[in-house]
Amino acid sequence: MGSSIGRMFRVTTYGESHGEALGCVIENCPAGMPLSEADIQPDLDRRRPGQSRITTPRDEADRAKILSGTFEGKTIGAPIAIAVFNENAREKDYSDIKDVFRPSHADFTYHARYQHRAWRGGGRSSARATIGIVAAGAIAKKILREKAGVEIVAYVSQIKDLAFKSDVDFGNISALRDRIESNPVRVPDAELAEKMARLIQDTRQAGDSLGGIVECAAVGVPAGWGDPVFDRLDALIARAMLAIPATKGIEIGSGFSSVTMTGSEHNDIFEMQNGKVATKTNRSGGIQGGISNGMPVTFRVAFKPTATISHEQPSVNEKGESVMLKVKGRHDPCVLPRAVPIVEAMLALVLVDQFMVAQTAQYDRL
Amino acid sequence: MGSSIGRMFRVTTYGESHGEALGCVIENCPAGMPLSEADIQPDLDRRRPGQSRITTPRDEADRAKILSGTFEGKTIGAPIAIAVFNENAREKDYSDIKDVFRPSHADFTYHARYQHRAWRGGGRSSARATIGIVAAGAIAKKILREKAGVEIVAYVSQIKDLAFKSDVDFGNISALRDRIESNPVRVPDAELAEKMARLIQDTRQAGDSLGGIVECAAVGVPAGWGDPVFDRLDALIARAMLAIPATKGIEIGSGFSSVTMTGSEHNDIFEMQNGKVATKTNRSGGIQGGISNGMPVTFRVAFKPTATISHEQPSVNEKGESVMLKVKGRHDPCVLPRAVPIVEAMLALVLVDQFMVAQTAQYDRL
Amino acid sequence: MGSSIGRMFRVTTYGESHGEALGCVIENCPAGMPLSEADIQPDLDRRRPGQSRITTPRDEADRAKILSGTFEGKTIGAPIAIAVFNENAREKDYSDIKDVFRPSHADFTYHARYQHRAWRGGGRSSARATIGIVAAGAIAKKILREKAGVEIVAYVSQIKDLAFKSDVDFGNISALRDRIESNPVRVPDAELAEKMARLIQDTRQAGDSLGGIVECAAVGVPAGWGDPVFDRLDALIARAMLAIPATKGIEIGSGFSSVTMTGSEHNDIFEMQNGKVATKTNRSGGIQGGISNGMPVTFRVAFKPTATISHEQPSVNEKGESVMLKVKGRHDPCVLPRAVPIVEAMLALVLVDQFMVAQTAQYDRL
Amino acid sequence: MGSSIGRMFRVTTYGESHGEALGCVIENCPAGMPLSEADIQPDLDRRRPGQSRITTPRDEADRAKILSGTFEGKTIGAPIAIAVFNENAREKDYSDIKDVFRPSHADFTYHARYQHRAWRGGGRSSARATIGIVAAGAIAKKILREKAGVEIVAYVSQIKDLAFKSDVDFGNISALRDRIESNPVRVPDAELAEKMARLIQDTRQAGDSLGGIVECAAVGVPAGWGDPVFDRLDALIARAMLAIPATKGIEIGSGFSSVTMTGSEHNDIFEMQNGKVATKTNRSGGIQGGISNGMPVTFRVAFKPTATISHEQPSVNEKGESVMLKVKGRHDPCVLPRAVPIVEAMLALVLVDQFMVAQTAQYDRL
Repeated sequence: MGSSIGRMFRVTTYGESHGEALGCVIENCPAGMPLSEADIQPDLDRRRPGQSRITTPRDEADRAKILSGTFEGKTIGAPIAIAVFNENAREKDYSDIKDVFRPSHADFTYHARYQHRAWRGGGRSSARATIGIVAAGAIAKKILREKAGVEIVAYVSQIKDLAFKSDVDFGNISALRDRIESNPVRVPDAELAEKMARLIQDTRQAGDSLGGIVECAAVGVPAGWGDPVFDRLDALIARAMLAIPATKGIEIGSGFSSVTMTGSEHNDIFEMQNGKVATKTNRSGGIQGGISNGMPVTFRVAFKPTATISHEQPSVNEKGESVMLKVKGRHDPCVLPRAVPIVEAMLALVLVDQFMVAQTAQYDRL
Repeated sequence: MGSSIGRMFRVTTYGESHGEALGCVIENCPAGMPLSEADIQPDLDRRRPGQSRITTPRDEADRAKILSGTFEGKTIGAPIAIAVFNENAREKDYSDIKDVFRPSHADFTYHARYQHRAWRGGGRSSARATIGIVAAGAIAKKILREKAGVEIVAYVSQIKDLAFKSDVDFGNISALRDRIESNPVRVPDAELAEKMARLIQDTRQAGDSLGGIVECAAVGVPAGWGDPVFDRLDALIARAMLAIPATKGIEIGSGFSSVTMTGSEHNDIFEMQNGKVATKTNRSGGIQGGISNGMPVTFRVAFKPTATISHEQPSVNEKGESVMLKVKGRHDPCVLPRAVPIVEAMLALVLVDQFMVAQTAQYDRL
Repeated sequence: MGSSIGRMFRVTTYGESHGEALGCVIENCPAGMPLSEADIQPDLDRRRPGQSRITTPRDEADRAKILSGTFEGKTIGAPIAIAVFNENAREKDYSDIKDVFRPSHADFTYHARYQHRAWRGGGRSSARATIGIVAAGAIAKKILREKAGVEIVAYVSQIKDLAFKSDVDFGNISALRDRIESNPVRVPDAELAEKMARLIQDTRQAGDSLGGIVECAAVGVPAGWGDPVFDRLDALIARAMLAIPATKGIEIGSGFSSVTMTGSEHNDIFEMQNGKVATKTNRSGGIQGGISNGMPVTFRVAFKPTATISHEQPSVNEKGESVMLKVKGRHDPCVLPRAVPIVEAMLALVLVDQFMVAQTAQYDRL
Repeated sequence: MGSSIGRMFRVTTYGESHGEALGCVIENCPAGMPLSEADIQPDLDRRRPGQSRITTPRDEADRAKILSGTFEGKTIGAPIAIAVFNENAREKDYSDIKDVFRPSHADFTYHARYQHRAWRGGGRSSARATIGIVAAGAIAKKILREKAGVEIVAYVSQIKDLAFKSDVDFGNISALRDRIESNPVRVPDAELAEKMARLIQDTRQAGDSLGGIVECAAVGVPAGWGDPVFDRLDALIARAMLAIPATKGIEIGSGFSSVTMTGSEHNDIFEMQNGKVATKTNRSGGIQGGISNGMPVTFRVAFKPTATISHEQPSVNEKGESVMLKVKGRHDPCVLPRAVPIVEAMLALVLVDQFMVAQTAQYDRL
């Protein structure tokens, strides 16, 4: 299966890099919600290739079209089908790699699983397959914002050794967003952004690629979302994040750094803040026992360097022969800036689903 | 929901720390498989409290009983219900914390979600709730071993600053297992084990607790398991691992260390090994594009220090009053050694499900 | 899979006729609901064998035990595991049919599907496997009654040619229930009940068996439950009813009789009743376009005559040899009276799930 | 949810009568299957309006377009998205009923559930919403035919009092299909077809509508498909059929007629036929204990008379006022002929899913 997520807010994505269209179908979006393409396009624009000098030059408008599920500007409770039609598919770019397994790509594993491989641009393994995720995520964000007061924000916090180490202020989300979106790298530090952009361009020049870290937070999540055991909020977030191409790890709150602390150092002490239970520190990342505790939900996602590089690399082909491979085609030397809206969208899908599930958790509220 | 996992090999767990029983129901386990309690008990024994001097002194035999789904020593295709009846429940241990929120525990979040909290030993948030996981995992392991040639092995690789840094040899799983199980810490290095055990005991003495890292590998997984997009093998593993209490992060293969490498440094080069496509290095952790590539599936899971410590800590209670809290009760100063079979079980549940799903992936094989 | 039902109120049943125990696990039952075995036992008593002179003489107390999910008399949001331990299993009754396929039983099909057959009392195909359904249904009924004002009532309306043809008055459910439960046949007509009981006893004497019809209604279902397309309320009810052993058909409202009417004869005309939209007639059976319309949800379920008869019958065995078969063992000559609580339970499972799903259908109510 | 069906062959449909497009997304269709629009169009043509003089005059080409999931004429294991774009949407036809509840339509119940109603042509409750079902069913049929030797055939067996009562010969499916498709009513009897067509036309003239029965069979289903308890093959078929608009009942095999038989009259006696276990009669309708037994799977579906009639009818509007209603618009006086491919498609979706699930039922075959 693999192309659907969510119990109540159920999203199924479809589409390959060079097919007719990509998109999603959303089941069970509540009825009566104002919705149009204008709610979806901004996040698609943040994801689209060709948006800046440091992304792939493949230029796609990625225009979303709502095919069903709305009437007179509102949702009607029926499945919302969204399509983005592919425009700029250059088949010739890929024909010379059609039977070769590119290192650290999905070529070999797709071949092993499906026998029949869509070699045009990676087919379903392409990052274009995240279009449906971003489109559905935009709707999820709107519900979260309007109905639960939840704001989601992600940014690049590291590219190779260049790390953003300051604390961010979740008290003013819109100011934080402005800082992040003011530079093409999407790091909340203009000076660092400049260094990172230069590193990306230099690396592209050298035919190589870069990895990094995206940090993300959801602010305003009320205490009580998430469902032990297997649907712990952290477990669902981890699944969603590792479902993004090129990710290699995730840590919630203190993450791997918690390993070297003792319990007395690590525990988040409860106290009352403005009449609400809160914690002095947030090493828990807003989640305890798999359920949100009202503090910001925070996590970090590791992205490996893009597998596609221009260097000549040895490999094997479908016949098992050794070959030397030199990939042409258009690609990102560093996916991090465009990964930001994808991370946000994935988190939104997880949270909106748990928001809906939480509505029936208590007998007294039914 | 939250208590069930898997599309084909569907496991639902139940039970709280101090209720009547804990266990699981497994749907869709193939019929005709030899199965008895003897297949399940060894892993429960590796998980049970009181197994060694470095775990909690709460002593439970944790005897599994199969209630349904077998006949004359074989599975019959019906749901397999398994129960472990609680024996050593000391209610008095917990009565003084029944309305207090212990720091970094699930007390507050469960209260927020369910209003009605089972304060006896943590209720559903207790690590005892993993009994059903380990029981089901034992069955999954057996299927994987007998039908797919897959072996799963996990071990403690770090406790606080004490790290096991050698490479392990996956070529001889049974020797590796012997080294791991030869010491109560479950680290594949006797000398390091001694140091770790001493650190654990010293920390217990000091009323504090420790975190660490468990490493895990599945060897023999054929190329072709996992299902893009949302059911990428790495995504499913991440969800399963972060569903284990006290986990804070996971990294697959090179994980967070990939961030500072370039693509040319990080890519795993394909080559033929014994007539099969293999990779020279395994930074991918056996998974590319969300699908297994035939190399060992490897990952690391971060566990925070146990939240339960004997130190006096400030907190608040259900009425929002400030309180000083001193937890008695029996607990593990370091959950890592007992987490090893849980990590293995979780991985087994993910893999056996994908093994079954993979049977129908190709039209030509139907 | 097959042993679980429901999206939000998720029930998984387990158990065979002669195994250790039968029961169910309920996920996602709202927390804070008062619950004990006393809520469950009455319906199990209505289902249990040996309850009257017209049912099977196999006498089982069928005592329910709650293994998890409650604390201090209330649900806690954790899975509710329920077990009924088998007591009166007489293995010898079945040994002579262990390799023979009884006509119109599940022996052959289970053999074909699973190879390994549990010949003791039918294994998972036994009507005892409905114990978990009735137990879970009792909880579902309680939620529906307390939180949605829905009452469910079923009764036998036909046995062979003896048909109850009067209209029933849904205005006084408790009086109707009294009439139904005042006789062992569970038909709301004492005189007819006497005739039916005599027919059942005569048929048992003759070594033969009988079928019939159960009618069922849910009163108080508000307009707006059910979810087009595949989760239409009528579709979900049909699935639930045909999942009861020995059922051969279902009709909603006017059912098969609608076939010979014209639209102008069949349409239910809307009118206002007490300030609410209602229909003059209820040929729709309370469901239009797959969604409840506020009128009683009504349907009829056809049960075939019990396959087990004492007559000698030709058949074949597992080796494909012709055999003559004479089944001993204890069985019901007519399952209808005991099917009544099962039909009610199945409907309750469908309705409570849709009740929970409906909570998030409208954006304005979030 | 409601718009998706299937565990392994997972179909999600979308679209309303007058939106941009209708269709479906199919997850987990095996990779490497030859597939193009030509496989889908014939069944859509059998379903489309305007196909003959006895259907609605709304004329739609209903051209299927595959948006994703294939490459070079074969499936690739990725979701298959299919779209049929609406062409002939005449909005004005419906504006005068936009706030009135048409008798026995879904107007009132959709209004109750979603508040926001898509009044253009019934929105999601329109029979056009079955387009995605028929498209997905065409693919399912192809898999069943090529990989399991299963043929599905449905036909009209009754319209009002005109009933087709002969036995049909499942030994020659293609001859049977020819007889069925040789007339616009889709009844396997040319003479009866003529009478039925006349009745339909007379009824349309009179501004009224008709109901009827569709019979359906799947031939070649091997013994062993279906999964007790809730996923019994008959239960899944019942759900799928009652999910078709205008259905009021279903009976499997002997159905409601079994009620008046005794067990000795009703039981299907096993015997060997060509070295295989078979039954002399097929009152079981090819299903015993919820699992197929190798005989033809047979059932009958009752369709009520179309709710839309031209007669003037009293009703109420959204404000609760009494109104007189006279529906214009284009509609079918009898949906039976066009329901035939929908019944077939629904059965195909159920069977292909169970075919895939059955692949892993036995341990020895893994």
